[in-house]
Amino acid sequence: MKVVHSPLHRRHDGGMELHRSKLVPCFESRARAEDIREALADAGHALVAPRAFAIDSLLGVHDADFVEFLRTAWARWQEDGRDGFMLPSGFPARGMRRDRVPAGIHGAMGHYAFDAGTPIVAGTWDAAMAAAQCAMTAAALVAEGEGAAYALCRPPGHHAGRGTYGGYCFLNNAALAAQLLRERGSRKVGLLDVDYHHGNGTQDIFWTRDDVLFVSIHGTPDTEYPYFLGYADERGAGAGEGFTLNLPLPRDTGWDDYAQALDTALQAIHAYGADALVVSLGVDTFEGDPISAFRLGAERFPQLGARLAALNLPTVLVQEGGYAVKELGSNVAGVLQAFSAPTWRPAAGPARTSAPAASTAS
Amino acid sequence: MKVVHSPLHRRHDGGMELHRSKLVPCFESRARAEDIREALADAGHALVAPRAFAIDSLLGVHDADFVEFLRTAWARWQEDGRDGFMLPSGFPARGMRRDRVPAGIHGAMGHYAFDAGTPIVAGTWDAAMAAAQCAMTAAALVAEGEGAAYALCRPPGHHAGRGTYGGYCFLNNAALAAQLLRERGSRKVGLLDVDYHHGNGTQDIFWTRDDVLFVSIHGTPDTEYPYFLGYADERGAGAGEGFTLNLPLPRDTGWDDYAQALDTALQAIHAYGADALVVSLGVDTFEGDPISAFRLGAERFPQLGARLAALNLPTVLVQEGGYAVKELGSNVAGVLQAFSAPTWRPAAGPARTSAPAASTAS
Repeated sequence: MKVVHSPLHRRHDGGMELHRSKLVPCFESRARAEDIREALADAGHALVAPRAFAIDSLLGVHDADFVEFLRTAWARWQEDGRDGFMLPSGFPARGMRRDRVPAGIHGAMGHYAFDAGTPIVAGTWDAAMAAAQCAMTAAALVAEGEGAAYALCRPPGHHAGRGTYGGYCFLNNAALAAQLLRERGSRKVGLLDVDYHHGNGTQDIFWTRDDVLFVSIHGTPDTEYPYFLGYADERGAGAGEGFTLNLPLPRDTGWDDYAQALDTALQAIHAYGADALVVSLGVDTFEGDPISAFRLGAERFPQLGARLAALNLPTVLVQEGGYAVKELGSNVAGVLQAFSAPTWRPAAGPARTSAPAASTAS
Repeated sequence: MKVVHSPLHRRHDGGMELHRSKLVPCFESRARAEDIREALADAGHALVAPRAFAIDSLLGVHDADFVEFLRTAWARWQEDGRDGFMLPSGFPARGMRRDRVPAGIHGAMGHYAFDAGTPIVAGTWDAAMAAAQCAMTAAALVAEGEGAAYALCRPPGHHAGRGTYGGYCFLNNAALAAQLLRERGSRKVGLLDVDYHHGNGTQDIFWTRDDVLFVSIHGTPDTEYPYFLGYADERGAGAGEGFTLNLPLPRDTGWDDYAQALDTALQAIHAYGADALVVSLGVDTFEGDPISAFRLGAERFPQLGARLAALNLPTVLVQEGGYAVKELGSNVAGVLQAFSAPTWRPAAGPARTSAPAASTAS
C-alpha cells in the first residue's frame, strides 16, 4: 500500500503538556512517526511524498479565521516577546463570551483551544499543514483508483473541529480526506474512528451533514478525554441527524466487547451505502498504551485490519493516536496487512462477504 | 476597622499553576494573607474570627451542583487513586457539550473550571469556605451597624461564577457579601471591583439582577486574563440590563487615567442610589505586581481608599488579588486608612462631599 509521509512532521516537537497535573514532555512525539515509518518500510509498503495542496483546500472543513490563527500564532507569540511553546491560560467557560476573539494572542489561544496539553511551537504550522497534505494525498490516490492508501499524519487530527484545536490535533486530517473524496466523486463517505479517544473534531465538522457518516468507537467520555463529546445520544442535527454514531465503551474493554462494537460500526457503514471509507486509525486501543485503557493485544490489530478490509471499499487510512512507541509501528503495520493481502479484497465480492478475514476475526 | 480573618486559608496551598506555558508555584500563596494580616494588625485594626455560616448560605449566588463538586472534589480525586493537586485536562469548547457533567472527576473538573491555573488541593474546600465565611461575616457586621469592615479572604473570589471556578477563585466572596447585605435590609448594593483582572464571576452572578450594580475597572480582556468577559459592551441582560458597567483600561495605565475611570465608577454607584457598597479589593494594580500591568505607585492606595470612603456608604471591603507579597499588606493598609480616619466619614454628609479625601485625591 502507498504510505504518504512527510519529514516535516519533525518541525513539531519540543513542547510540554499538562498531563494529570504534571507538565511532561508531550506523548505525541517525533519518535511515533519515525517508528511507524520504519515498520511500514520494513513491511514493504511504498513511501510517497505528499502533494502541495494549498491553504484553501482546508476551508471545506475548517473556518478561515481558525486557519489564519494557526498559520500566524507562532509569529504573534514571538511579537509578544515570548519563546518556548504556546499553551493557553484561560478558556471561555459557561457564562463567558465565545462571540468575540480577544485581540491578544493569549486570549485568542484560549478561544481556539480546548485544553492545555496541545502546545504550539515554531514548526507546528509546517508540520500540521504537511500532515493535512499527507491525508489529502492519500485520499487523492484512492480517488484516482488505488484500493487503499495510508497517510502517516503527525500531528494527528481527529480532535480538531471546524474552529478548535486540542488533544495534540490542529488540522483534521481525516475530515480533509473525507472532504476530498466527496469533491472527487464519492457520494457517501463512511468515516470510522477507532482511536481510543472520541473524534470530537470530526463529529463537529460533519454534525449537520448527511454525505459523511461519522462512526466512532472510543473510551467513554464520562471518564476519558475529551469528556465533552462522544456520548451515545449524539446523533447529528439538521440534515445530519442520524449520521453520527457513537459507540462509547468503558475502560478496560477487551477484544470481545470491542469486536462487537466494531461489527455494529461496520454494519452501520454498510447500511449507509458508503462508496468510500476513511479510517481515523488510532492504535492507542493497544493494552500497552501509556495514556489509554482498552485491552487489545497486538494480535488484534491484524484482525481489526481484516474487518475493515472486508468492507471492500476504497479506503483511506489516516494515522491518529497511539503512544506506546515501541509497539506503535508494528501495530499499524498489523492493521495494514489485510489491505495488502489480495485474499481480503475480492475484486467484485459483496460488501460484507464471508471472506476469511471476517470469519477469522469473529 | 474590624478585619475578619481565618487561619484556615493555610489549608489551601502547595499547588502549581500553568503560567505562561510554565508550571510554577502558585502566585496565590499563603504568604499573601500572612503579609496582609500582619500589616493590618500593625496598623491597629482589630482581627476577628468569621462566623459559622452554613453551606446553604452559598446558594444565593452559587449553583448547588457546583458547591457539591467543590466540597467533594478532593475525595473523588483520591478515590481515583491520585494525590498532589487537581488541574483539569480538557474544557468544553465551542461545539462541545456543556449540558452534561461527565461522571468522572477529570471531566467534571473541566466542566466547572475555566483554566489550568487554579489547582484544588486537600484543604481547598476548607479554605474557600472559611474565606466565604469571612466575607459574609464582614457583611453581617456592616448590616449590624459597623460603618465598614474588611474580609481578609484567601483564596480570592471574584472570578468564580454561579457554577464556574478559575483564576485562583472557588467561591465568590464579594458576591456572597453583597447577597447577605441584600438579605439583611439593603435595597441596592453597589459592587465595585478594582482588582486588575475583570471580576467575570461577579458579573456572571448578578448579570440579570438590578438589585446589585456591578462596576469593574480592569485591564482590558483583549490582552489580560480572563479574556472572555469584561468588555465595555457588556451591560447586563433582562432585569439586569444597564446594571453592569465595565471600564477596561490598557496595559501600563497610570494613575491619571485610572483615577478618571474611578470617578466614572463612583459616579455610577452614586447615581444608582446604592445604600451599601462592596469593594472587590485587588491591589494588583500596583506597579510592582508580578503578573499585572497597571502602574499605580504605593502612594495611590490611600488615595483610592479615600475616594471609596467619600461615597459615605456602609462598606464591605473584600480581599481579591495582589501578588507583590512584600508590598501587599502595606498597600491594603493604605486603602483602609481612609475608612479608619473619622474625618473621611462624616456621619450625615451627602454621598459625594468635598471632604479632604476627595479633594486630596483629585
